Amino acid sequence: MRILVTGADGFLGRGLVAALSKTYPDAQRIVLTDRAFAAGSPNRMEHVPGDLGDPDFLDQLIEPGFDLVFHLASIPGGLAERDQTLGHQVNLMAPLSLVEKLAKRQPGARFVFASSIAVYGHLGRETVTDATACQPELTYGAHKRMTEILLADLARRGVLSAISLRFPGLVARPATESGHGSAFMSQIFHSIAAGEAYTCPVPAQSTCWWMSKRAAVDNLLHAAGAIEMAQSVIQPPVLHASVADVANAVARLTGQTAKVTFGTDATLQRIFGAMPPLDARTAISFGFQADVDLDALVKAALSGD
Amino acid sequence: MRILVTGADGFLGRGLVAALSKTYPDAQRIVLTDRAFAAGSPNRMEHVPGDLGDPDFLDQLIEPGFDLVFHLASIPGGLAERDQTLGHQVNLMAPLSLVEKLAKRQPGARFVFASSIAVYGHLGRETVTDATACQPELTYGAHKRMTEILLADLARRGVLSAISLRFPGLVARPATESGHGSAFMSQIFHSIAAGEAYTCPVPAQSTCWWMSKRAAVDNLLHAAGAIEMAQSVIQPPVLHASVADVANAVARLTGQTAKVTFGTDATLQRIFGAMPPLDARTAISFGFQADVDLDALVKAALSGD
Repeated sequence: MRILVTGADGFLGRGLVAALSKTYPDAQRIVLTDRAFAAGSPNRMEHVPGDLGDPDFLDQLIEPGFDLVFHLASIPGGLAERDQTLGHQVNLMAPLSLVEKLAKRQPGARFVFASSIAVYGHLGRETVTDATACQPELTYGAHKRMTEILLADLARRGVLSAISLRFPGLVARPATESGHGSAFMSQIFHSIAAGEAYTCPVPAQSTCWWMSKRAAVDNLLHAAGAIEMAQSVIQPPVLHASVADVANAVARLTGQTAKVTFGTDATLQRIFGAMPPLDARTAISFGFQADVDLDALVKAALSGD
Repeated sequence: MRILVTGADGFLGRGLVAALSKTYPDAQRIVLTDRAFAAGSPNRMEHVPGDLGDPDFLDQLIEPGFDLVFHLASIPGGLAERDQTLGHQVNLMAPLSLVEKLAKRQPGARFVFASSIAVYGHLGRETVTDATACQPELTYGAHKRMTEILLADLARRGVLSAISLRFPGLVARPATESGHGSAFMSQIFHSIAAGEAYTCPVPAQSTCWWMSKRAAVDNLLHAAGAIEMAQSVIQPPVLHASVADVANAVARLTGQTAKVTFGTDATLQRIFGAMPPLDARTAISFGFQADVDLDALVKAALSGD
């Protein structure tokens, strides 16, 4: 088994990399790529820093062939809105090129793509199901949806064994990562745990879809092995809870008092804080899992794993 | 006004080109491109044959700048299924590159994209509305949907003034054009009008969405001018009728006897012959139009316009 992870030094990437050796103890090669690597890394893994938008780098990266690719590399939605050229290169052209080259180099390889619930665009109050239409409203979601469609078609044709997982904003991202519009979903964990005051931009009753990095990693690894599935796009189950409920759980579990002031940012609430219920029975039937409950979510989010 | 038409020597392209001069009598330049031009062309229009997949050609083509682009170039769905590389180049990468280059050369230009109802994939029995999900099942529809999403995002950002029109199989394509899976929708016109026997691959009660080339051209020209619309994806109205109803109308209007034997091709029927009703009120409210009735459809389809 030869494995490639893109975006390997990102928030989700580091979590995945930490779990890879245990899941694939006999892997022949595990190659990690990212623009740069900030920290050291586990033994037995090769670090290949570079730019996925550079065709020569991509050729060189793919050359050994891989049986399994986790494509996590992307720039956050807020940054993609501000820097259109960068968003186009990293979030659209890079996966398109990677997929095209991989399909030629290693037809049938398993390709696990970290997609996003941003593909839906604005959702109404109706429960989200497999039949819910995707009308992405931000460039980030548009690029993710385009990549999903390409992968679904390649999977149908048997060119690649591709699967896309739609992740919500994962918690708790480092406090320094503020490029995501959903940053408030992580900041609320950090600030309450640290006993600090926090001004949350959206109202207390805003409802979000919650998933810890740990659960996201479990779902990525499960997706890698779930090769018999017909579906190539999966909406994993999430916890559906209000910001206030999560804040209370964090305060309770950390013994802190939640010093949170809630704002009324209508745009952020519309995009991230007005999520309807989710019917993820399809994904659950295939073994994908949410965090067990809010307590488990908070513990995982604050563990740093 | 400087106008560019891609796929200008195709079935729909020729119809559009024939109507352009009347709609834009004062156009400064009208540039037509296609891989090659089979026939002569109207005066005052420049012919630039070439391959949209060639970056140098594209640079040269776009260089003068255009206020209005009709992007019609594509290969048919059947061919895209058979030749994956060609489909990827022509139906996906060519529009992506064209759009990227045009956005840089002429920000805000009007871009009219000939999309397809193939974006929906399999539809159930429910009436199709603006909220119907797109789950393309063929590569052709996947590429069209990806392009629609990109254009909708660029329109939202004001980068291009883009609009996509979802066309059904247009009638009546030349009898020689058999690359489309929906070819039977045109063959039925030709064979009955010629008094020839025809074996239609799908059952008589198969329901299709019908539109003449003339109506499609009218909708393209309307789209070009409808720049105040918020919607960037339009499902124009169509005629919803069975193959038998259309066959009978052709026979009646041509004074022929319909010598049609109907088959039971489940795949073709599923993709093209099981279309539910369409609620196109949004498009109609913006002035898009179907053929008036089956008689008008048949007359337009057989006129060769």
